[in-house]
Amino acid sequence: MVVSTISGSSHLSYSNGTTIPLSTFSSNSFVNVEKGDPVAFRSYWEKMREECTIEIKGDEWMSYFGDTNNLCWYMVPQMRDAILRLHNMVGNAVTKDKFLVLGTGSSQLYQALLYALSSLEPSDRPINVVAAAPYYSEYKDATDILQSRLFQWTGDAALYDKGEPYMEVVTSPNNPDGTLRVPVVNSGAKGKVIYDLAYYWPQYTPIIYEADNDVMLFTFSKCTGHAGSRIGWAFVKDIEVAKKMIRFVHLNSIGVSKESQIRAAKIIGVICDGYQNLKSIESDRLFFYYSKRLMKERWEKFKGAVEQSKVFTLTKYPTSYCHFNKDLSEQYPAFAWLKCVEGIEDGESYLEKLKIRTRGGKRFGVDTKYVRISMIGTDDEFIKLCTRLSNAKRE
Amino acid sequence: MVVSTISGSSHLSYSNGTTIPLSTFSSNSFVNVEKGDPVAFRSYWEKMREECTIEIKGDEWMSYFGDTNNLCWYMVPQMRDAILRLHNMVGNAVTKDKFLVLGTGSSQLYQALLYALSSLEPSDRPINVVAAAPYYSEYKDATDILQSRLFQWTGDAALYDKGEPYMEVVTSPNNPDGTLRVPVVNSGAKGKVIYDLAYYWPQYTPIIYEADNDVMLFTFSKCTGHAGSRIGWAFVKDIEVAKKMIRFVHLNSIGVSKESQIRAAKIIGVICDGYQNLKSIESDRLFFYYSKRLMKERWEKFKGAVEQSKVFTLTKYPTSYCHFNKDLSEQYPAFAWLKCVEGIEDGESYLEKLKIRTRGGKRFGVDTKYVRISMIGTDDEFIKLCTRLSNAKRE
Repeated sequence: MVVSTISGSSHLSYSNGTTIPLSTFSSNSFVNVEKGDPVAFRSYWEKMREECTIEIKGDEWMSYFGDTNNLCWYMVPQMRDAILRLHNMVGNAVTKDKFLVLGTGSSQLYQALLYALSSLEPSDRPINVVAAAPYYSEYKDATDILQSRLFQWTGDAALYDKGEPYMEVVTSPNNPDGTLRVPVVNSGAKGKVIYDLAYYWPQYTPIIYEADNDVMLFTFSKCTGHAGSRIGWAFVKDIEVAKKMIRFVHLNSIGVSKESQIRAAKIIGVICDGYQNLKSIESDRLFFYYSKRLMKERWEKFKGAVEQSKVFTLTKYPTSYCHFNKDLSEQYPAFAWLKCVEGIEDGESYLEKLKIRTRGGKRFGVDTKYVRISMIGTDDEFIKLCTRLSNAKRE
Repeated sequence: MVVSTISGSSHLSYSNGTTIPLSTFSSNSFVNVEKGDPVAFRSYWEKMREECTIEIKGDEWMSYFGDTNNLCWYMVPQMRDAILRLHNMVGNAVTKDKFLVLGTGSSQLYQALLYALSSLEPSDRPINVVAAAPYYSEYKDATDILQSRLFQWTGDAALYDKGEPYMEVVTSPNNPDGTLRVPVVNSGAKGKVIYDLAYYWPQYTPIIYEADNDVMLFTFSKCTGHAGSRIGWAFVKDIEVAKKMIRFVHLNSIGVSKESQIRAAKIIGVICDGYQNLKSIESDRLFFYYSKRLMKERWEKFKGAVEQSKVFTLTKYPTSYCHFNKDLSEQYPAFAWLKCVEGIEDGESYLEKLKIRTRGGKRFGVDTKYVRISMIGTDDEFIKLCTRLSNAKRE
């Protein structure tokens, strides 16, 4: 065990990767809610630690290949079965008649999609990639990092008026603002849509319908909180798109970690088993019940703090019927999206003075009045965040 | 257990990822030695299966972060320590005063390097990427897949005579032909060199010196045979190059599977422990001793078969002193590189008629007289390969 400094606050780090914040933040240390590391659900997995344990022996899973009978040859059958079982249970996506493509997180699949969708459409100009602002802060850099001749980041989808082919990324619920989204480009040009459904899980939002789009991205990180595993997946209608994506993953990393696949399959299996054996166990041991309650409690506490601060306003979310939980429910997004009240121009700087580190609106394609705050960090960080926020005084 | 068809031959597939070829190939089934899946060493890991077992509990390794005190923030300390320990023991690379960058296999790090080395050198033209033929068949496609404006594949380094900046990839020992390599470009232009040392391990070649280059790539796959884990690493002299590579891995896949890191650290630890406790155990239980003997036996058998065939000639390798094994030794490359004798123009087609699937010279930037054959497949495949090869008759 060592005591180390993470993001300015003291933690106890254990060799098994558990990092426990020391219970007292010094008044000088920053509360870091800038990133989206989904550690909030760890308390659930601590309770389930034994039944989720995986064991891998020295000679297992050595090959590049996972299933040579599958188009996605590096995916092991257990991983495929677990993903299909989870969606069938939650009812958040239609998986029938679609190809399942596994990736090293959904980040790799985003790049695989840019390649697949653009290279199938030969053009002498890069295809424009757009998303309605505020959009996920990494799309721009992830799109432009290699200065591809196939595609280029073009910014806010709402402003797109070129007559050229485009790809629109629709993140729903949206990162950063949690809103439910539909495509917005209306330029008359030929476009393809990538649905990034990373947050379309019952702890964040009511499941209002089974998504049935041609290209849908999901990630294990935001579903269960196991971000360290780097597992993402895509459902793709068109076999040519799927083949190109698999070709990209082949050249980019020759497939996806088998150890992560085995672990993700196990954890998803435990979640699904819990619901299947519903009557025999307490609802508190059901993952989406537990995680939704956690998000709800945090949001209630957080709303109180924002109101007290009198410095920020919050996005309002509708109440909808959740087909999975079979109840009416609000949304409890993974991020809060705050707007400064009249007279304050820069939310990130304002909160920096309160020792709260956030990500400002500019990174999301909007102005500095907005900031994004992670709602899925540690309990300790979250409590301190609320305390500091409610003590915020207009200068 | 299911019986499935892999690469044209029948296998028994177990749920733990073990694939056992049925002992009788039918005379119609192909021997597939086209790919480089390093399953030859599985017999060793079967003997060590229990002491290499890892266990991961439900709440462990959930975060994106592995070590926030390290520049390479997604790498866990155990992984870093294991890699350094292995190199220090084998003596194949100078690790001091270099930055260690972890990747999802060395494929991802190859791309990270193209980005890092080219974007630090602003230019209005793509930087030329070259390698001396015969070169690894995937470099071209991995370089050009996204049609980057930063870099482009330019082919054989020996023919490079442009006055423009370039990057030369030096694979040593080389894939496909096993030769030890040095840079060959002599155009007078400014160049950077990427050393791909995937096969610079004692089972393939005598360790003749500690490599001490500015940019060196290694992969777990070809070192121990655990290709399914997708673990690679780079030693980089320049911190700016390391930072850019880490930025690439961040945008490409937000780090590297923690489960794979834990497993690779365990397996490397078992290898190193074996040597540390040398006197107490049989040398047969030492990984590089076992794997070198396996490669040597295969090569001796294979050379006999090639001689009998009278259709092919083999690359000749020098004998050198191995500082790790402390003996004089030949090379036993992971691939055999065959050249057809006079009068036969297409080695791949010739072997295809003998039901041996190989990768022809064109993929490696040379002519069809050459073929590459994997020496690291299953025992069963290898035995059948030798039988078919020794029965080859000139038509």
